[in-house]
Amino acid sequence: MSTKLPNIKTDFSQWYNEVVFQSGLADHAPVRGCMIICPYGYALWENIKNRLDHRIKETGHHNAAFPLLIPQSFIEKEKQHVAGFAPELAVVTIAGGKKLEEPLIVRPTSETIIHHMFAKWIKSWRDLPMKINQWANVVRWEMRTRPFLRTTEFWWQEGHTAHETPQEAQDEAELMWKEYISLYENYLAIPVVFGIKSESEKFAGADRTYTLEGIMPDGKALQLCTSHIISQNFAKSFGIMFQDRSGNQAHPYLTSWGFTTRSIGALVMVHGDEKGLIIPPKIAPIMVVIVPIFKKDVDSSIIKNEVQRIAQELRAHSIAVEVDDREDETPGAKFYKWELKGVPLRIEIGPRDIAQRTVVLSDRLGLAKESVSFDQLLQQVKERADRVQKTLFERAQERQQQLWHIGEKISVFGPVLDKENGFYQTGWCQQSSCEAELKKYSATIRCILPSNKLNHCFNCDQASKGDIVVAKAY
Amino acid sequence: MSTKLPNIKTDFSQWYNEVVFQSGLADHAPVRGCMIICPYGYALWENIKNRLDHRIKETGHHNAAFPLLIPQSFIEKEKQHVAGFAPELAVVTIAGGKKLEEPLIVRPTSETIIHHMFAKWIKSWRDLPMKINQWANVVRWEMRTRPFLRTTEFWWQEGHTAHETPQEAQDEAELMWKEYISLYENYLAIPVVFGIKSESEKFAGADRTYTLEGIMPDGKALQLCTSHIISQNFAKSFGIMFQDRSGNQAHPYLTSWGFTTRSIGALVMVHGDEKGLIIPPKIAPIMVVIVPIFKKDVDSSIIKNEVQRIAQELRAHSIAVEVDDREDETPGAKFYKWELKGVPLRIEIGPRDIAQRTVVLSDRLGLAKESVSFDQLLQQVKERADRVQKTLFERAQERQQQLWHIGEKISVFGPVLDKENGFYQTGWCQQSSCEAELKKYSATIRCILPSNKLNHCFNCDQASKGDIVVAKAY
Repeated sequence: MSTKLPNIKTDFSQWYNEVVFQSGLADHAPVRGCMIICPYGYALWENIKNRLDHRIKETGHHNAAFPLLIPQSFIEKEKQHVAGFAPELAVVTIAGGKKLEEPLIVRPTSETIIHHMFAKWIKSWRDLPMKINQWANVVRWEMRTRPFLRTTEFWWQEGHTAHETPQEAQDEAELMWKEYISLYENYLAIPVVFGIKSESEKFAGADRTYTLEGIMPDGKALQLCTSHIISQNFAKSFGIMFQDRSGNQAHPYLTSWGFTTRSIGALVMVHGDEKGLIIPPKIAPIMVVIVPIFKKDVDSSIIKNEVQRIAQELRAHSIAVEVDDREDETPGAKFYKWELKGVPLRIEIGPRDIAQRTVVLSDRLGLAKESVSFDQLLQQVKERADRVQKTLFERAQERQQQLWHIGEKISVFGPVLDKENGFYQTGWCQQSSCEAELKKYSATIRCILPSNKLNHCFNCDQASKGDIVVAKAY
Repeated sequence: MSTKLPNIKTDFSQWYNEVVFQSGLADHAPVRGCMIICPYGYALWENIKNRLDHRIKETGHHNAAFPLLIPQSFIEKEKQHVAGFAPELAVVTIAGGKKLEEPLIVRPTSETIIHHMFAKWIKSWRDLPMKINQWANVVRWEMRTRPFLRTTEFWWQEGHTAHETPQEAQDEAELMWKEYISLYENYLAIPVVFGIKSESEKFAGADRTYTLEGIMPDGKALQLCTSHIISQNFAKSFGIMFQDRSGNQAHPYLTSWGFTTRSIGALVMVHGDEKGLIIPPKIAPIMVVIVPIFKKDVDSSIIKNEVQRIAQELRAHSIAVEVDDREDETPGAKFYKWELKGVPLRIEIGPRDIAQRTVVLSDRLGLAKESVSFDQLLQQVKERADRVQKTLFERAQERQQQLWHIGEKISVFGPVLDKENGFYQTGWCQQSSCEAELKKYSATIRCILPSNKLNHCFNCDQASKGDIVVAKAY
């Protein structure tokens, strides 16, 4: 089954691959660049998804389902879009035993087909805003793949909206990036860096891309999710027109925004340690594992009954409990397994505990290991879960600060970044020629920050038009 | 927007197509045989899906996600399977700008790839039973398509399980067909006919297929969902082996079972009427629509406020309420719209009602239209919803009985069936030559029933091996 994990400090990349598979989040698929999301990983994804889906609905969006297969001509309608996606497309050329007259693209994203439908559905300002979301699988033929971080097929939600005015589109993008920030910070316990993508890094066909960037423990950036103000070219290319309040024909303003299974990769990297995963309690498929401590001279059924009673009591309060009462495994082997899976809390209970009406409660972070009375258990489990959630976020924030640097001149910080990774906040003139200099250090502009503290461009020394953050990226 | 529906009695087929689109369940997609599931249809699907997902988990299954694209060689491993599915496959031959060495099939079902993983995951009897479920989209290149009933792409859950013994596999199939019956009868209010498929009608690669058949109002059958005892050939072809309790290597016993978006088509046909859909309350995206009756001499905001108060009170008790307080539409136009969408209950409220602290409560079936006091409203809404749910099922049962006939000789009932449709219970010798005679009347054996009342085969007059039911099918 599982073997020793690679050293997380010296071999982070291998550690990541191994922990994803050994913990039961995912498995290799027999299809290039694809993965299986295994039951434990899928339960985690469902918890994240359910929370986000709830918020998407609460903020006035409606779920729908659009076709997986998109006519090639649709993808080609918007020039920037096709240029961006062409190298990554999977193409169905044969169906029902015959060569298709027009090939069909397995969707890499659904702007084209959804905008086609918008053109049919939107006639008047009364039809706006139109706020649609889809939970779907998409396929992009990526060169290098890694489970969750970049897979040929991945799972996501893609929101697509249409509005009367540019301001409303802007407000929509803001609404959703704030939802994403809340989900990442308050549920996944991952602090984010928010900003705008440079022209060269934005979505193929967007006027503007807002991004959340995560800082991974190795000092590299992971793009967590994005929201786009879609170019009016889309509305024009797909003929989306509406009669505005003055009776004139107008094109609506469009947004799109997506959150993917990559979030699980972020969670693995940000919180994991040498023992394996650590899952934030608010999204944990298993919050508490109970391990009975059997003794040779005590009937194991007595302990098992007590364990089931405790499990039921906790479950009655919506706490996800797993009981590991296998008699052919040692407690040590069980501890190893559930630590690898990152279960936030553990309860041990043996005959002496039962006699005293107590259990031993510990947490995956090693914050405390204490005897807790039956009466106090529910309350203690809740408090400990909150503490683990809070501590995970604080730990991640601290590390983010350690990896965050101010850099003035690329000639100075570039070589350091290239060697040691890390995030560098600096100034930029917003010329692409300066941006291109970053390639020398395998780095990119992760985003343009809302701040403007550094006065000069990192490269040409001209006036900065706003701070940026520079890093290597996954 | 919407135009008059075709006559449901004289033009059922056109009525179906129109009501699906006009009610907002689905729309035509610009891809052959595909549909868009629109927000209202998707909300309905989510309600059905959430209920089934809950039961799938409660009965010990785990959700997971497997790749969309399956290597062609996998599909070809099991002879019956490939023979059954070959004509319907969509094939990816180009990806990432290059011709693929091995084409990839867009999954028509996932037995092959899941069994490949089972071979990796199952080593010992301790790994059994393995009970996996996937919510997914699948693609089958069908000749004739109709929204929900048969679409090129459809959405479903597919359960795949592996067991130590044939009995356990049998028990699993039974567990799930009973869940399906409960879902159809208790939630969708659709009575089902349960039985076993004949050899010629069973799933490609199954030893045995259990089916639920629905009787549509036009007397045709709709296969509602199926559970399969999968042939041991699959376990052999994919090399799924485990060490049994005696220490010997053995192949596990497999099942699969699926429930699809076709269920929505069944619901439309079984319950709909000349005004449009009728959605069973237990799965209705909107349980009650509130239509305020504005009067010229009364400030509309007074009525609107009262309507919002009532809506909030009902929503606080988990009742899905829609408020239609548009001032530019007549009450009549609103009634038409919400009847078309099949909302089970309607509340009207005008100034006089407010003064009397009452509303007018009516239901989509026309069972009652009564004045109800504010104090009684919540209770009355619940009772009416229950009554609508119960009445829908009883109505469907009655019609099922009307369309159910006993037939002795195909020469007698065949011509009648061909002309007037309907279900014919008869005897069968279980020879395929007799089964083939049904083609003359465009009919098939829908299933072998658990009963054995008719003594002779409908065709050859030899001893019957069990009752069957014969009908034309969608």
